[in-house]
Amino acid sequence: MSIPEKFDAVGVIDYDKWLEPKRFQHTPKALRDNDVDIEVEACGICGSDIHGANGDWGRPYAPLAVGHEIVGKVARVGPKVTKLKVGDRVGVGAQCDSCGDCIRCNKGIENHCRKEVGTYLSYYKDDNTPTQGGYANYVRLNSTFAFKIPDALSSVVAAPLLCGGITGFLPLLTAGVTKGTKVGVSGIGGIGHMTILFAKAMGAEVTAISRNNKKKALAEKLGADNYIATDEEGFDEGYTDLDVIVNTGSSFTEGSFKKLLNLIRPHGRMIFITAPPNDESLELEPGALLASAVSIEGSHIGSPKEIEYMLDFAAKHDIKPWIETIDISEENVSTAWQRMTDGDVQFRFVLTGYDKFFK
Amino acid sequence: MSIPEKFDAVGVIDYDKWLEPKRFQHTPKALRDNDVDIEVEACGICGSDIHGANGDWGRPYAPLAVGHEIVGKVARVGPKVTKLKVGDRVGVGAQCDSCGDCIRCNKGIENHCRKEVGTYLSYYKDDNTPTQGGYANYVRLNSTFAFKIPDALSSVVAAPLLCGGITGFLPLLTAGVTKGTKVGVSGIGGIGHMTILFAKAMGAEVTAISRNNKKKALAEKLGADNYIATDEEGFDEGYTDLDVIVNTGSSFTEGSFKKLLNLIRPHGRMIFITAPPNDESLELEPGALLASAVSIEGSHIGSPKEIEYMLDFAAKHDIKPWIETIDISEENVSTAWQRMTDGDVQFRFVLTGYDKFFK
Repeated sequence: MSIPEKFDAVGVIDYDKWLEPKRFQHTPKALRDNDVDIEVEACGICGSDIHGANGDWGRPYAPLAVGHEIVGKVARVGPKVTKLKVGDRVGVGAQCDSCGDCIRCNKGIENHCRKEVGTYLSYYKDDNTPTQGGYANYVRLNSTFAFKIPDALSSVVAAPLLCGGITGFLPLLTAGVTKGTKVGVSGIGGIGHMTILFAKAMGAEVTAISRNNKKKALAEKLGADNYIATDEEGFDEGYTDLDVIVNTGSSFTEGSFKKLLNLIRPHGRMIFITAPPNDESLELEPGALLASAVSIEGSHIGSPKEIEYMLDFAAKHDIKPWIETIDISEENVSTAWQRMTDGDVQFRFVLTGYDKFFK
Repeated sequence: MSIPEKFDAVGVIDYDKWLEPKRFQHTPKALRDNDVDIEVEACGICGSDIHGANGDWGRPYAPLAVGHEIVGKVARVGPKVTKLKVGDRVGVGAQCDSCGDCIRCNKGIENHCRKEVGTYLSYYKDDNTPTQGGYANYVRLNSTFAFKIPDALSSVVAAPLLCGGITGFLPLLTAGVTKGTKVGVSGIGGIGHMTILFAKAMGAEVTAISRNNKKKALAEKLGADNYIATDEEGFDEGYTDLDVIVNTGSSFTEGSFKKLLNLIRPHGRMIFITAPPNDESLELEPGALLASAVSIEGSHIGSPKEIEYMLDFAAKHDIKPWIETIDISEENVSTAWQRMTDGDVQFRFVLTGYDKFFK
């Protein structure tokens, strides 16, 4: 297999015309001893891709290929790579590098290394190469952040697990969810629906939470035990006393965040997992937080060990994200981004057809 | 012992002249079956007393007697009181009533009952009687919230434990502090110094945190192992990675709150325990919270069981808050409030001389 010097991608050329992505080429960072090249087969479209492409999180460089739910085959390994070999089917999530040296990397929480590098919209710390994601024929990255995919998971099923899946799964681990834990999942979308599937597989009693009743039937189909619509009057009367709410909503200005706090038991947890646009902040009333004793906590992707555990769990429990596949092309990426923005997908797009488009 | 129909108190007559408290009389709520009357011997002066007196938390009624670190002798018991008898030495903290009926009261977390009533600056839910605190010769309240004081604790030592003490102790319980836990205590004042004493008694490695170095010697004297001044450049370089910070500061607008987050390990906790003025809010950047995975949590006084456990712990470990006693009078209350406001006390005033003043 001959690997090109330049990689081909589809991405944002001009942030003002983010819905008109174009094909482009970029030169990857020189291969390091512990790097791998991966020939991409499939890539999930994450909500972060939209935030990244439309400038919500800044406009650091263009062209920009997003995509951090990548599945493909190892095409080349650096001389010091031992965990993977050419031909392995692997997945890559939202992180592509860390220092490998600090106490956190050594503890196995590379996702909290202060030199963490994101799979796209980020820069390598040593030489400032901008990172490019998985809407591309190849990606090159630190092999620490490439994970073997269990045989039981098809590539298109595995793809959305690599960011959306782990992002919803990790808060359940953090909160120690087990049989009978009362778990709320707020937001029944890409990440939310996977969180419901995982929580049910752990034996939790799951309450799906949305603003209105439109997603009630869907939530039932996903296996949720209860449903709460926060726009309904009296939704928080009495004590719901959930142990944890995983808040998958990506805006903090709609007031629903504060409403959710009333549904949690004292010393229960509100864990949110997606970042809003840079100009939104989270404004809380200290008095209300004191009275409720609810903890508010962000959750950050997952460590390599946590991602590997999640993939095994998904294989063992036959977790099947609801996906719609769409072949990669300039037009289809635009269509998928527009439909994502409109909430018109149940629940996750996965880009396929890489060999055809990039041949 | 004959109990007067009206109770005598010292408190705020006019919020605009809060530093000129006056003696006044008030008629307590009619004795209920489970109520007790307590003849007050001593009362700690809590930071909340200042917030309550100066209108930071609203001006619901006057006159207002504050004080919720009360120690005294049971003078009368309602017909259904079984846990206490006349003559018992008891303490009262920040809560004087709850519904007694809901799932939370039945679980023993009466401090999270939605019908919780504060010892002052609050109203009884059944008849709207405003509550009056312990700057008074007597207090009357639900006996559920009066706790026997262990013999090993003198009344003036026990007093500040009943609000300040439990408020700093509970986050340590919540965070599961034990031998070797890395505990930060931010703010070396009334509550902070007791929190250091408790954390050391639990075997924690304690880091005292303040804005500058002025309190370094004091912190050492209290037993703190490390000291961090957040105004010093580079204070958060490297990984401090505390397991928990108990933030005893009572303002959220000074920016130090955000600085503290950098000192906590991923999945560690920031527990704050005091309420700022009503017009201050806590504004957080969701992105920073996501990246740090630190939980932010308010802590609310303590349940009766937790308060009793704390009193026993304090007796067993010989916890001795640093106090300055001052005899109750209009002038002395004013002086003490002024000096509290100026930070001129190490670390807690306790009002004494009740029998002289109210004779």
